[in-house]
Amino acid sequence: MNRYMDMAVNLARISAGQTSVNPPVGAVVVKNGRVIGYGAHLKAGELHAERAALNSCIESAAGADIYVTLEPCSHHGKTPPCTDAVIEAGIKRVYYAARDVNDKVDGLKVLNDQGIETIYLKHSDVEELYRPFNTGILNQRPFITLKGAMSLDGKIARQDGDSHWVSNEYSRLDVHHLRQQHDGILIGGHTLLNDNPSLTTRLSDNDSHPVPVILLGSQTLKADMNIFKHPHKPIIFTSNKENAAFEDRAELYFGSYDLSEILYILYERDIVSLLVEGGSSIHTQFLNENLFDDLIIYIAPKIFGYSEYQLHQGDPDSQLNLILHHVEKLESDIKLTYRRTQACLQD
Amino acid sequence: MNRYMDMAVNLARISAGQTSVNPPVGAVVVKNGRVIGYGAHLKAGELHAERAALNSCIESAAGADIYVTLEPCSHHGKTPPCTDAVIEAGIKRVYYAARDVNDKVDGLKVLNDQGIETIYLKHSDVEELYRPFNTGILNQRPFITLKGAMSLDGKIARQDGDSHWVSNEYSRLDVHHLRQQHDGILIGGHTLLNDNPSLTTRLSDNDSHPVPVILLGSQTLKADMNIFKHPHKPIIFTSNKENAAFEDRAELYFGSYDLSEILYILYERDIVSLLVEGGSSIHTQFLNENLFDDLIIYIAPKIFGYSEYQLHQGDPDSQLNLILHHVEKLESDIKLTYRRTQACLQD
Repeated sequence: MNRYMDMAVNLARISAGQTSVNPPVGAVVVKNGRVIGYGAHLKAGELHAERAALNSCIESAAGADIYVTLEPCSHHGKTPPCTDAVIEAGIKRVYYAARDVNDKVDGLKVLNDQGIETIYLKHSDVEELYRPFNTGILNQRPFITLKGAMSLDGKIARQDGDSHWVSNEYSRLDVHHLRQQHDGILIGGHTLLNDNPSLTTRLSDNDSHPVPVILLGSQTLKADMNIFKHPHKPIIFTSNKENAAFEDRAELYFGSYDLSEILYILYERDIVSLLVEGGSSIHTQFLNENLFDDLIIYIAPKIFGYSEYQLHQGDPDSQLNLILHHVEKLESDIKLTYRRTQACLQD
Repeated sequence: MNRYMDMAVNLARISAGQTSVNPPVGAVVVKNGRVIGYGAHLKAGELHAERAALNSCIESAAGADIYVTLEPCSHHGKTPPCTDAVIEAGIKRVYYAARDVNDKVDGLKVLNDQGIETIYLKHSDVEELYRPFNTGILNQRPFITLKGAMSLDGKIARQDGDSHWVSNEYSRLDVHHLRQQHDGILIGGHTLLNDNPSLTTRLSDNDSHPVPVILLGSQTLKADMNIFKHPHKPIIFTSNKENAAFEDRAELYFGSYDLSEILYILYERDIVSLLVEGGSSIHTQFLNENLFDDLIIYIAPKIFGYSEYQLHQGDPDSQLNLILHHVEKLESDIKLTYRRTQACLQD
């Protein structure tokens, strides 16, 4: 680990979760062994980290090195290319921890053509940081986190349908952190009608909230639903024409879309990360189509016995491979984070 | 923590799992700031730790202190009282980390009456060490560990009944450690007939094996079952008189016993700790009657979907309270150890 890159990573973290559709980036400018400038990319459309860092320099950056978490961009997007700024500033070397998987970007080549040395510094935290963005670009869909709360015996609700307080207050707080970190939050019509959820982040009075996405099916919307009080207009997929009455209060898609189509629409709508909160039938669909990246399960120390409300209702693909990535004890609940791996097709 | 008591605890651990019906005990004798003797209780009927430690002393123990994990015994059992040995040796002070819950023992009083000072040293490892024994004495039944291996969605087998390799090799190895640590291992008739298990410990060629206990119900034994190759004669509860043909090869109890009766019989048979390996119907019974102390669940990173093979088949007592005591990651499996707590009867 390099300490300047560590600083750049910490700067990137300042803006993690608020830069969609861009990835978070941090940069520090170093000259003669001291940091002379630092920057983070706070929001899409605002200054990129490299420009912010160069602008902040307390002396000329000519001959300095820049440490940046991501390869500098070389294309005109909402802002001009960062490579221009790096070149104009007279930077000698660019240290970067990740390449940009966006095909439009070849910042390294542009810099090298100008005689600027570019040096890769591996940083595992950076790989984690860009995983959602790279997943999106490579698959043209949001990064998908399936989230479920279950009893120890795998039930998401008791047989009488009561799903309140499956998990404890620490798990529920953690879910609000998840909501804050995702651009969109998706539920099914059954959950909408049964729970009438708000789908907001409730950490402080200063939160960002994920855009609600409802796979409503043939269900009918009601005027007093809490989602209509959400800071964002909900995106609703429905086959029920009656719901046209809510055209002013929601972004409605009529017809029968398959999951891949829905995810493509969401990605085009700048939803780069999507938290799927279920219920059963929604989780079953995403699991069956292998459409997820992370699976986060909160397990409460309860035994519900027989119940039809389960994580998966059917007969899942036996090729579904999960790797246990992270374990966290939340008092007497446990949070398990799994990652999907591609099934190995050869023996 | 006291370093001499730590030594005594480590000595007690040498014999943990092999002293039934006695608890494991360790002792060190300290004089003028140096250890002059040490001992462990290796097996019921053999020397108690205090006597072993006093016998090993490299100089006279007169005026020395003894650190012992458990209050010295004051009654004649298979061996004479340890308090006699402590008194005869001229020990000045006895440091102990646990009282003996056995009513027959009041070693402290016997020692005090002889002018020997007794000093309690709290040691959390000792509380853990004696938990199974104290549970047994207080409830007149074995300490019960329910063990299950499940998919992430709470199924102990796929719907086609296939329960092989739910968990990974690390979990399976861990189960053999559990078997080594328990006096008895209990399964139901369904598991016996379906899996034909050996119920042995398979860690090395030098293992101790739990006594097999089968709740066979109305099922019929077969001559070629692996349990008949077990180093211990299996204890079998059955309502099927045909099984009398196996009287030479098993300890048979005919009739319909309830779980509490069965557990009392096992406890009287010196089975102080019992590992319950299921399946579904057995776990359901133990859970429903709150007859367990630890619940150990291995969760594999698999999703089985619909299956009737579940940890609990019915409608469990909603007063069932579990505390997550320990979490261990075994590669991509996770081992969760829960403890049962008494339900709080008041609001």
